[in-house]
Amino acid sequence: MLNCGLTDLRLVRPRDGWPNARATSAATGAAEVVRSARLFDSSAEAVADVEHVYATTARVRDMRKPAVTPAAAAVEIRQNAARGERSALLFGPERTGLDNDDVALAAKVLHVPLNPSFSSLNLAQAVLLVAYEWYRAGEGDGPASSATPTERGRAATSAQLQNFFAHLEQELDASGFLRVRHKRAVMLRNLRNLFHRASLREHEVRALHGILAALTGRRKDGAPTRRARHRSGGS
Amino acid sequence: MLNCGLTDLRLVRPRDGWPNARATSAATGAAEVVRSARLFDSSAEAVADVEHVYATTARVRDMRKPAVTPAAAAVEIRQNAARGERSALLFGPERTGLDNDDVALAAKVLHVPLNPSFSSLNLAQAVLLVAYEWYRAGEGDGPASSATPTERGRAATSAQLQNFFAHLEQELDASGFLRVRHKRAVMLRNLRNLFHRASLREHEVRALHGILAALTGRRKDGAPTRRARHRSGGS
Repeated sequence: MLNCGLTDLRLVRPRDGWPNARATSAATGAAEVVRSARLFDSSAEAVADVEHVYATTARVRDMRKPAVTPAAAAVEIRQNAARGERSALLFGPERTGLDNDDVALAAKVLHVPLNPSFSSLNLAQAVLLVAYEWYRAGEGDGPASSATPTERGRAATSAQLQNFFAHLEQELDASGFLRVRHKRAVMLRNLRNLFHRASLREHEVRALHGILAALTGRRKDGAPTRRARHRSGGS
Repeated sequence: MLNCGLTDLRLVRPRDGWPNARATSAATGAAEVVRSARLFDSSAEAVADVEHVYATTARVRDMRKPAVTPAAAAVEIRQNAARGERSALLFGPERTGLDNDDVALAAKVLHVPLNPSFSSLNLAQAVLLVAYEWYRAGEGDGPASSATPTERGRAATSAQLQNFFAHLEQELDASGFLRVRHKRAVMLRNLRNLFHRASLREHEVRALHGILAALTGRRKDGAPTRRARHRSGGS
């Protein structure tokens, strides 16, 4: 619950009594949610002050009620809240789920669409998925958002890229890599595309120049690098 | 996993050995997933045959990698599959999460957006949310997909990429480019990320090996290339 920003926990006749040390210890970091849980004698009392009740079910039963997915419920619940109306998500006991009297409290049943041949979730997982959808529906940037990579430094300019491509081409010519005449143009184009796709930063272009110089033992102007001079002096 | 239709479980050095009776008993109804899990000695080996690796992180670290939500990753993974390319979701141990070497295997990090003041999930919950988004993306009710440009040829596998990184690292070491000890690790990480961002194809990785060999005048095994022999014979 707290992972998804939910804190109002209401319990109906907890099997093992309340407070419950195991529940508190299992709630590491979220113990406040457990501590502030309210107890009720019946599901009806637990949801008495709530305008919209959703009954979660593992299977869509013949309940003559509209069934919604967690995603659809999440949108509705946020719309309800915008009108000042509260919503409750009703979950049943681990093994048996909600009984018919519980489900009868709800205007809609909430069903998590999962692998039809293996759809049973444990209670914690069911709560997580439903709460997650609620949280997600409130994230302004919508469901499919992916953060744009925050690359360090400035993006390389086109001129900087072209300068690197020229350096690469010069060294590939010198090395013989482009010796097959009829493949030369397409090979260079493919290489440029590869580096374009990487959205290079300025500092990366500088590093790539340095790599070309280091691998060939030559500065860009054709003069030997310090290392290359040292090397040839030593041999 | 099985709730969401996923069955290919790969384990890296399970802490408590394998097979593990507790894992089997916890997997009620999904024991087949546990039974058919494959064991690996390293994360690199576990994902070697996979084209797209997503590293899950509890926090978006300063990793210089694009970060995607489970929803965005789900769409990508289904698009990858439509092109015949496999994807791996990499999860770390319960307490520590993935280490930097694990994350280095991935082109993207996957981050579950949750309550910023309580965002840590246990491993089972993290797997569930990510798998759920994958399942959901296949059920009409998923987010609208944005088509990505399809590159020619097959995507390089993780093993092919790691092999190229090793070749690059070896040549950069030999050239003296990485001689500043305290910068070595970060320089290599930045280079890997740069090439990860390019989503390299198999034929491009082959070309990059060829370029390294040509620029250094040396085949990958250290023997001189034909051109290098010719050049030294001529001088």
